[in-house]
Amino acid sequence: MIIGFIGFGNVSKRFTEIFNKKNISLITSIEKRSAKTINNIKNSNISVLDGFKEVAQCSDILISANSPKQALNVAKKYGKYTKGFYLDLNNISPKTTLEISKYFKKDNFIDGAIIGNVNRNKAILYVSGSKSQMLIDLNSNDLEVSYISNNIGDASTLKLLRSVYTKNLSGILLESFEIAGKLNLEKELYEILSLTEGEDFKSNSQSRIKNTIKNSNRKTEELEEIIDYFESDLTITKATLEKFKGYQY
Amino acid sequence: MIIGFIGFGNVSKRFTEIFNKKNISLITSIEKRSAKTINNIKNSNISVLDGFKEVAQCSDILISANSPKQALNVAKKYGKYTKGFYLDLNNISPKTTLEISKYFKKDNFIDGAIIGNVNRNKAILYVSGSKSQMLIDLNSNDLEVSYISNNIGDASTLKLLRSVYTKNLSGILLESFEIAGKLNLEKELYEILSLTEGEDFKSNSQSRIKNTIKNSNRKTEELEEIIDYFESDLTITKATLEKFKGYQY
Repeated sequence: MIIGFIGFGNVSKRFTEIFNKKNISLITSIEKRSAKTINNIKNSNISVLDGFKEVAQCSDILISANSPKQALNVAKKYGKYTKGFYLDLNNISPKTTLEISKYFKKDNFIDGAIIGNVNRNKAILYVSGSKSQMLIDLNSNDLEVSYISNNIGDASTLKLLRSVYTKNLSGILLESFEIAGKLNLEKELYEILSLTEGEDFKSNSQSRIKNTIKNSNRKTEELEEIIDYFESDLTITKATLEKFKGYQY
Repeated sequence: MIIGFIGFGNVSKRFTEIFNKKNISLITSIEKRSAKTINNIKNSNISVLDGFKEVAQCSDILISANSPKQALNVAKKYGKYTKGFYLDLNNISPKTTLEISKYFKKDNFIDGAIIGNVNRNKAILYVSGSKSQMLIDLNSNDLEVSYISNNIGDASTLKLLRSVYTKNLSGILLESFEIAGKLNLEKELYEILSLTEGEDFKSNSQSRIKNTIKNSNRKTEELEEIIDYFESDLTITKATLEKFKGYQY
C-alpha cells in the first residue's frame, strides 16, 4: 500500500513515523514547500516525488494535512488525480468537510479528525464515510483509528463537539482559579478537587489553563467558529468566549 | 472524649458510625425532633440526653449539623452552654459562618465543610480556625480531616469555590450533551471524551447530569447564593445559572 501526504507539518510527521513501523510505502513532494517543511521531509523516512500531482496519482490513500485555510484548495487542485481514498485530516468545520467532499465520488472521500494532541502516546483518529471502516487496518500500538459512521461530516462534528466540552472546561478552570488566586486558596482548591476529580486533576488543569492563556488568540477564534456552527444551542459556551477574550493579547 | 450532635440527618448519622469505631462517647437529644429524626437516633449507637442544653454542656466537641436556615439559631441558642469546641458543619456561606462565629470565643469555633457526599467511602472534612488543627486526631479509614488554615471562613469558602467548579462542570456537560443528543452522537461523544478524560468519564458525567436535572431547583438556588457571594468575579457561572434555570420544574 502507498500513502501520500499533501502538507507536512506535525500531523504528517507523526503519521510518517507511525506508518513506517507498518512497512507502508510513504510518498510526498517538496514542490513549492517552505524551507522548514523541506527540512521536516528530509528528516523523515519518506520518498519524495517531483510534484503533488504525481503523489496523488500514485497513492492508495491520499492524506491532506494542511492549514484549515488551504484545505479546500488542496482538494480542488489535487483530489482529481487520485484513484484511491482521499483522507482529509485538516482541522476544519463539518460545513467545510461537506463542501470538500463534493469534489470526490462519495465512496472515495473519508472525513478524518485527529482527537487531542497528535503527539500523545497513542494518536487518536476518528473517521467517517462509506468506506472509512477500512482504515481500521491502520490500527497499531501508536494509532487508534475509530470508525464513527458512514456519514461524511460525523467525524468533524464529533471533534467540534469535543471541543465544546474541552474549551468550556478550560473556561471554568480559568474562572474558578482566578477567584481562588485572589483569595490565596489556589493550592487548597487543587487539593480539594483532586480528592473527588482524581489525582491527575492538578497537572491536567494547570496544563489546560497554561495552554489556554498561551494560545488565547487562536482558542478565541476556534471558539467563535464553534459558536458560529452550533449557533442557538449554546449558552455557557458564549460566556466562555467572553472569558477567553479577556485573555487575548 | 465526648462529641455531641445538634441535628441528626445524614451527616450526623454517618459521623456517629465513624466515631463509634474510634470509641468516642457520642451524645444527642430527641428534644422537639421529628419522628423521622427520632427514628434515625434510635437506630444509631448514641446516648440520648434530655435536652440540647445538656448535650452542649457535656460535649468536648459540639457539632451543629442542621439545615442552613437553622444554623445561626442553633448557635445562638446552645453555643453559649458549651465549654468545648463548636464545630459548624452546616452547608452555609462564608458570610454566615463568620456571623455565627461571633457568638463564640475565637479559639472555640471551628469552621467545618464536608466535601462531596458524606456517604462516600472516605468522608472528607475540611476545617479552619485557630484550634482546628486539633481535629486531625479524628482521622480514620472512614474520615479524612484536612486542616486548611487558622482563618474562620476559609473552609466554607473553599467548599463554595469547589462548588463553582463542580456546578459549572455539570452545566457544560448539560450543554455539550444536549447538542450531541440532537445530532445522535451522544454515545460517540462519551467515547471520544473518555479517551482523554479517563475511563470513568461516562459514568461520572451521566451521574452529574442526572443529579443536576433531578435537583435542578435546589442546584439553581445554591448557584444563586454562590453568585451573590462572589458577585463580579463570575462570567461563565452566570451563564450556567441560566442553563440550570432551563431545567427548573
